[in-house]
Amino acid sequence: MITIDEHRARILASVSRSTATERSVHRSAGFVLADDVVSRWPVPLFDNSAMDGYAVRRADAVEGAILRVVADVPAGCADDPSFGPGEAVRIMTGAPVPADADAIVPLEHTDLGTEVRATPPESITVTVAPKPHAHIRRAGEDAAAGSVAVRAGTVLGPWQLSAIASAGHDRIPVVARPRVAVISTGSELVEPSDTPQRGQIPESNSVLLAAAIVDAGAEVGWTATVRDDEEALVATLADADVDAIVLTGGASVGSFDVVKAVLNGTGSIEFTTVAMQPGKPQGFGLTEAGVPVFCLPGNPVSVAVSFEMFVRPALRTMAGHPTIDRPRSVRRAATGWRSRADRVQVLPVTVDEHTVRPAAPGGSGSHLVTSLAEATALAVVPAEVIEVFEGDPVTVMELR
Amino acid sequence: MITIDEHRARILASVSRSTATERSVHRSAGFVLADDVVSRWPVPLFDNSAMDGYAVRRADAVEGAILRVVADVPAGCADDPSFGPGEAVRIMTGAPVPADADAIVPLEHTDLGTEVRATPPESITVTVAPKPHAHIRRAGEDAAAGSVAVRAGTVLGPWQLSAIASAGHDRIPVVARPRVAVISTGSELVEPSDTPQRGQIPESNSVLLAAAIVDAGAEVGWTATVRDDEEALVATLADADVDAIVLTGGASVGSFDVVKAVLNGTGSIEFTTVAMQPGKPQGFGLTEAGVPVFCLPGNPVSVAVSFEMFVRPALRTMAGHPTIDRPRSVRRAATGWRSRADRVQVLPVTVDEHTVRPAAPGGSGSHLVTSLAEATALAVVPAEVIEVFEGDPVTVMELR
Repeated sequence: MITIDEHRARILASVSRSTATERSVHRSAGFVLADDVVSRWPVPLFDNSAMDGYAVRRADAVEGAILRVVADVPAGCADDPSFGPGEAVRIMTGAPVPADADAIVPLEHTDLGTEVRATPPESITVTVAPKPHAHIRRAGEDAAAGSVAVRAGTVLGPWQLSAIASAGHDRIPVVARPRVAVISTGSELVEPSDTPQRGQIPESNSVLLAAAIVDAGAEVGWTATVRDDEEALVATLADADVDAIVLTGGASVGSFDVVKAVLNGTGSIEFTTVAMQPGKPQGFGLTEAGVPVFCLPGNPVSVAVSFEMFVRPALRTMAGHPTIDRPRSVRRAATGWRSRADRVQVLPVTVDEHTVRPAAPGGSGSHLVTSLAEATALAVVPAEVIEVFEGDPVTVMELR
Repeated sequence: MITIDEHRARILASVSRSTATERSVHRSAGFVLADDVVSRWPVPLFDNSAMDGYAVRRADAVEGAILRVVADVPAGCADDPSFGPGEAVRIMTGAPVPADADAIVPLEHTDLGTEVRATPPESITVTVAPKPHAHIRRAGEDAAAGSVAVRAGTVLGPWQLSAIASAGHDRIPVVARPRVAVISTGSELVEPSDTPQRGQIPESNSVLLAAAIVDAGAEVGWTATVRDDEEALVATLADADVDAIVLTGGASVGSFDVVKAVLNGTGSIEFTTVAMQPGKPQGFGLTEAGVPVFCLPGNPVSVAVSFEMFVRPALRTMAGHPTIDRPRSVRRAATGWRSRADRVQVLPVTVDEHTVRPAAPGGSGSHLVTSLAEATALAVVPAEVIEVFEGDPVTVMELR
């Protein structure tokens, strides 16, 4: 047996960040920026007003001064009306400040207050004199033209995308998301909508993996269910045309473990046992074409655990994510449970602010798929621990 | 001015959970389950083997016993081969345990070890006697038929979807995601790919809102940019056909604030000022058709803050999410900053494990869209605080 860290290190040494691709900023949420995006212009682009009010010559705009309003500059207006002493220009928030102005008097600092009419008044009386450059946002005060708006490696959320659009870009370089094929193997598998007969079970791993792959920041290329039949599996693999392949089932020592029979020794693919519970039998390697292949045990809890420990960090590396691991924290065990000697236990659990408890009160068997319905985290219990006692500190990986 | 909580309470009193809809379990990640899903069968469905090995009569399978292998039960096999004293049946993990068996002897507890051939051996020698019922998973031990597999109100992640598939369902009742229209208003707006002229700025709010709406668990119906023109806005609104509408710009007191001019008094829509910075001018209400309409200020930071404070909790309520708010925590200010008196400051910030600092070192102006590129959280500074000093505790809303 090898350790979790040894298997993980071998996987991470075999995968690398995908190439950059260009996408619309409207369709890039959740992607990772591949190159710095620089602002095409100074931000703001021109001196503009921070308030609805009047652009004035400050020397004139003393308290009590009456100013004649000679022009109107709404938002989006390109005008630069000139005005002289004793005059002012009505201006709206965001509109360009006339070159003759050196301050803005907000609406509420005039005798007319905040009521606004379609056409500007003849004149206003200033009730509060403005400070120098009051309420003028200077061109470039936020960022210079050519300055980095969003850095390479940033995960693009709503705010980052907004900053990119403001910097003048609608096509941006992002790290391509790996497209992943999901192959569930096993002659016992039937569709969830079917009624399983003796010996059959509903196929649920493709549902689990497809959602987990998307959550990891990758894409599902396609999913397939294949009987325990070597020819059928070879044919399915031949169609792959994806960036990674995840198989479930058939990775162990059973006589019908066709995944191992077909893939062992292909490219760099090797099967091994990892000192973890569940998830002991694992296969991994690159095909001759260089495509990473993950061969996971078949039962759902093993799939969930194996995905978190091995597949997710690899997919996030490929997708360029700066953090590939779930956040870990320590909670106190709210109840005790047993753990198998010499293997790291990775147990579906529920957590609250301070405590952790197994999601399946009945036990920790790898077949307890119902435990997954409740779980919000995985507890990671070291190999040397054979029993967790109430109150013990336990490391948990939180899923959200 | 009203408080943030007052505005939020008015909004939340006006929205409710959307109706249930049926979806494929393959396409339900991130949705909220509308009704309990019960298992169609006991889990496991039949007594099955937890190991690759041999099904035996325990009375025979003492250490050193030689058992004749009379049948083979691979995964997916419906057979229930009978066997007599001194006999055994080869069985694979997950395969149904024959009625004549009362224990499983794993491969590694026989003289032949874990090497597996296509056809079973003639006979095996037991090297470790099994305990009663060893390695047999009993039908229904995980869950009874009709028991609740996943509860109404659960957010459907990979593990929950897997549990639902295992329970025998491929169509499930989920809360419908609200479809949201996004309308950016302002004659100054141009596409990010255009080169803005004096008075123009790139339209970035639809990018921000579209990504934020999806992140909140809702869907974008459509986006539009509309000039400051009442007729154009009326025509755009007439096409809505969505579950909610978010408008940006034109909600303040300016003479060209067409959103307010068109919508104020329509249905229950009202415009007000909220004691927050940024985001003071806000409009909200239901159209005569009962569709919630959010009218936000136009600049990007105000949009980001207003969305988090008002729109996101409403959309999550509509989508049925059990938690509508971002998690809040307290960090220490790594540096000081000023806050406007009598308004709650909601400031884009960066956080590490212990500290918080403004995302824009230069200031906290609502126009500093570049601050959004760096920010990962919002600091919420109470209205009575006019200055945050280094080391002060600060409440932050974390975005991830």
